[in-house]
Amino acid sequence: MAGTDWSATALAQRLGCECVGDAHVRVTHVATLAGAGPGGLAFCASDAYREQLAATPASAVICRAADRPYCPVTALVSDNPYLAYARAAGLLHPEPSLAAGRHETALVAADATIDPTASIGPYAVVEGGASIGAGARIDAGAFVGRGSHVGAGAHLHPRTVLAVGCRIGASSVLHAGAVVGSDGFGFARDGERWEKVPQLGGVVVGEDVEIGANATVDRGALEDTVIEDGVKLDDQVHIAHNVRVGAHTVIAGQSGIAGSTTLGRCCQVGGHVAITGHIRIADGVAIYGMTAVTNSITQAGQYASPMPAQEVSGWRRNAVRFLKLDDHYRRLLALEKTVRDMHQRDED
Amino acid sequence: MAGTDWSATALAQRLGCECVGDAHVRVTHVATLAGAGPGGLAFCASDAYREQLAATPASAVICRAADRPYCPVTALVSDNPYLAYARAAGLLHPEPSLAAGRHETALVAADATIDPTASIGPYAVVEGGASIGAGARIDAGAFVGRGSHVGAGAHLHPRTVLAVGCRIGASSVLHAGAVVGSDGFGFARDGERWEKVPQLGGVVVGEDVEIGANATVDRGALEDTVIEDGVKLDDQVHIAHNVRVGAHTVIAGQSGIAGSTTLGRCCQVGGHVAITGHIRIADGVAIYGMTAVTNSITQAGQYASPMPAQEVSGWRRNAVRFLKLDDHYRRLLALEKTVRDMHQRDED
Amino acid sequence: MAGTDWSATALAQRLGCECVGDAHVRVTHVATLAGAGPGGLAFCASDAYREQLAATPASAVICRAADRPYCPVTALVSDNPYLAYARAAGLLHPEPSLAAGRHETALVAADATIDPTASIGPYAVVEGGASIGAGARIDAGAFVGRGSHVGAGAHLHPRTVLAVGCRIGASSVLHAGAVVGSDGFGFARDGERWEKVPQLGGVVVGEDVEIGANATVDRGALEDTVIEDGVKLDDQVHIAHNVRVGAHTVIAGQSGIAGSTTLGRCCQVGGHVAITGHIRIADGVAIYGMTAVTNSITQAGQYASPMPAQEVSGWRRNAVRFLKLDDHYRRLLALEKTVRDMHQRDED
Repeated sequence: MAGTDWSATALAQRLGCECVGDAHVRVTHVATLAGAGPGGLAFCASDAYREQLAATPASAVICRAADRPYCPVTALVSDNPYLAYARAAGLLHPEPSLAAGRHETALVAADATIDPTASIGPYAVVEGGASIGAGARIDAGAFVGRGSHVGAGAHLHPRTVLAVGCRIGASSVLHAGAVVGSDGFGFARDGERWEKVPQLGGVVVGEDVEIGANATVDRGALEDTVIEDGVKLDDQVHIAHNVRVGAHTVIAGQSGIAGSTTLGRCCQVGGHVAITGHIRIADGVAIYGMTAVTNSITQAGQYASPMPAQEVSGWRRNAVRFLKLDDHYRRLLALEKTVRDMHQRDED
Repeated sequence: MAGTDWSATALAQRLGCECVGDAHVRVTHVATLAGAGPGGLAFCASDAYREQLAATPASAVICRAADRPYCPVTALVSDNPYLAYARAAGLLHPEPSLAAGRHETALVAADATIDPTASIGPYAVVEGGASIGAGARIDAGAFVGRGSHVGAGAHLHPRTVLAVGCRIGASSVLHAGAVVGSDGFGFARDGERWEKVPQLGGVVVGEDVEIGANATVDRGALEDTVIEDGVKLDDQVHIAHNVRVGAHTVIAGQSGIAGSTTLGRCCQVGGHVAITGHIRIADGVAIYGMTAVTNSITQAGQYASPMPAQEVSGWRRNAVRFLKLDDHYRRLLALEKTVRDMHQRDED
Repeated sequence: MAGTDWSATALAQRLGCECVGDAHVRVTHVATLAGAGPGGLAFCASDAYREQLAATPASAVICRAADRPYCPVTALVSDNPYLAYARAAGLLHPEPSLAAGRHETALVAADATIDPTASIGPYAVVEGGASIGAGARIDAGAFVGRGSHVGAGAHLHPRTVLAVGCRIGASSVLHAGAVVGSDGFGFARDGERWEKVPQLGGVVVGEDVEIGANATVDRGALEDTVIEDGVKLDDQVHIAHNVRVGAHTVIAGQSGIAGSTTLGRCCQVGGHVAITGHIRIADGVAIYGMTAVTNSITQAGQYASPMPAQEVSGWRRNAVRFLKLDDHYRRLLALEKTVRDMHQRDED
């Protein structure tokens, strides 16, 4: 995993870190504290790794000031080592740049607008009226529907589908297999059958958004589904029609949000979470993995609901009791009353 | 979102609604009660929206007879406004028709049968022995395997996969990325390793079915997996081998049904529901989102199991207690007996 | 479903079964005990099917020695009838072999290495530096990224994506729509926004692995995500970055494992299970469907957590009580103490 070659001091300067120790040591790639070799740049962001830090074979380490005394090699001191590491990794391992232009097998409609610096991969399809911004990248087999827009520097990975009339903001990423703009799940009852409700809204994805592999974001019924700037959706997340996900909210794998729910800004949603439709989640809410959210949450804070795994025989006994929990509670109440009465009589 | 242009009276007639008010007003598109402008047709199906109804800038509104007095504009009166709206939306905003025929890059096997009115998109692949019905639409990059059948008017969206030997009924829709006919998950134990059990059945999908984006429906082991007429599966639903989903059942996003289970007709399954294998769910069962169904359900009705989300510190305390629920119950029983005995002794 | 034609005795010999009854009867396909016709080979692995066994119209049945007396036709006696059946099905219904070579529309980079016995399908894309082993099969529209390796006899189904720098072992299968090697979900906090942490590791998939339709396996952050030999992942499973799944472990549909967790060998994970990050699951652990695993499991055994579905009105009452479970427990404790004190006083 060879990267580019930097002196510790040049890298520190670029990252806004203080460089302590041999400023001329060269770093060529990122690595773990334990697994690094010569040229390796590691990071340490927690006391838990001090032992590994003290023994690291890395050439330099990004760490907090508090950890610097334990660092046996050049230290790049940062208040936020993980963030500095993220940026260092980007500098040491830049994504290979793609030649601009269209692969000869890319099918681009005559009335699509493609910035000359964009790259359109093999077997990609860009329909009429679509526009692709500067430096955007449409990978192999990706599909951009009629009238859709892909912002500058955005990246549609292989086999992604951006349906008709949707917008992807600048610098946003759709990972492989993601589908943005498929129909919302809307049907009207007609006796025992269901009549499709045409889904006429679109999807508006902001800037600097990531949408994970095989994730799905449905188009709105009448108005748009909205993913605001800086949102990060993990693989296989599902966003239903007319949901709004607030800026800088992150949602982990396989979680789903049902229709017309509004999720606030800067929320953190764990994996396998189900959020029901037509509710509102406040800004700054954190939801633990596997939680079912069935009511609005009006206060920032941390919320959870999953039952902890236990050995099967115990689980089976407890789960059966749960089915009568209210009944047991009423018996507890009755018993409290009986005992209170007996106690009273004793006193009398 | 301009659509076609109708007079209120012509539209009402087509929908089977009574038209009250200015019968000549023109409607050109559907819209929300609050967001409509001139030419907008909105709907109102609930008392909760009466205030919006009274103030609507729409040109006409589909509503119940009970809501008509509150409607300041032309009313199209219906017993089922949402259904009438769904149909109106389809009339005002018809899907753009595609030219019949094959894109020059579509790869169609010589012995596949393609109706001349079908449309086969760019980079689609149709293998040998497959048949595509009248007016069917196979979008960009879709795959139709050997010997499969796509019914009249059916629509395979971009990047869908219909594996070998499966059938999609007339007017059914596979949304982008859906996979129908991948192998069921069947393995036989051989010491510590697992031997694949060939999955030799197919998938039979009825008429007027929708299968959501990135959903998966596995082929049967020996006999077919069956999705009956009118079923609607949302995005990322998973249907395992040899499941049968009864007619007009709807299943919301990310729910899964394990192998050989039979789900009745006209069921409604919420999102993130897990239904275990080899069980039977009666007709007319409604299952709330995030419910685990581990036993057969023999009676129509509503069923649920998710724990409600709560603030983390409370959840943590309660979840720990759950691990001893049976023990607590036994202590409650013992206490009831002690108190009964004491009471008895007091009486004696 | 016609297959190849075998005599019972030849098939028994190949499977290592004892053949009891007419050794010359011909079998041409596999079938169910109840649904078989002439030429059909069924299997019976459980007492529960003895009645069907006794009435089977099959030409031969694979069964245990204990079931042989109930078998009215030729019996192929095996200690593990389901395993013998799996193999018989493979012999009777071999997958049609594909011609080796590249479809004329397959795009293979000049510096990719393709074994001459491999088959590369239409519109498949193989990037530079990739290598495809002997007899491997890359189906229509599949994508193999720069520098990736596909082992001998491996099979990438239609529309699969193998991202750059990943390895698929010999005889492994990626089902349609599966994505291996998309970015792990790693972001560093920068005030309210999130900075992407470059995902520089790869994915290493062992031999004889299956990865289900629309499943996702993310690349590691620094080191690799590892799926060991013989692992079977069902449709829509999600494996996050730097997870290790031990050999011969099976994971059912829609389950997910969060980052850096290690799952042991020979585990069995049900569907819709969520396993949190940075934990360790021992070898031989079985986890029931819809379980939330939030802590390491150090002992082989069976674990579960889902609440059982119940009728909605009862569920609602019980779920409300759960929110006060700890409080109720404390009241039970207090009551126990009161009663103990009263009892004591009575005795005195």
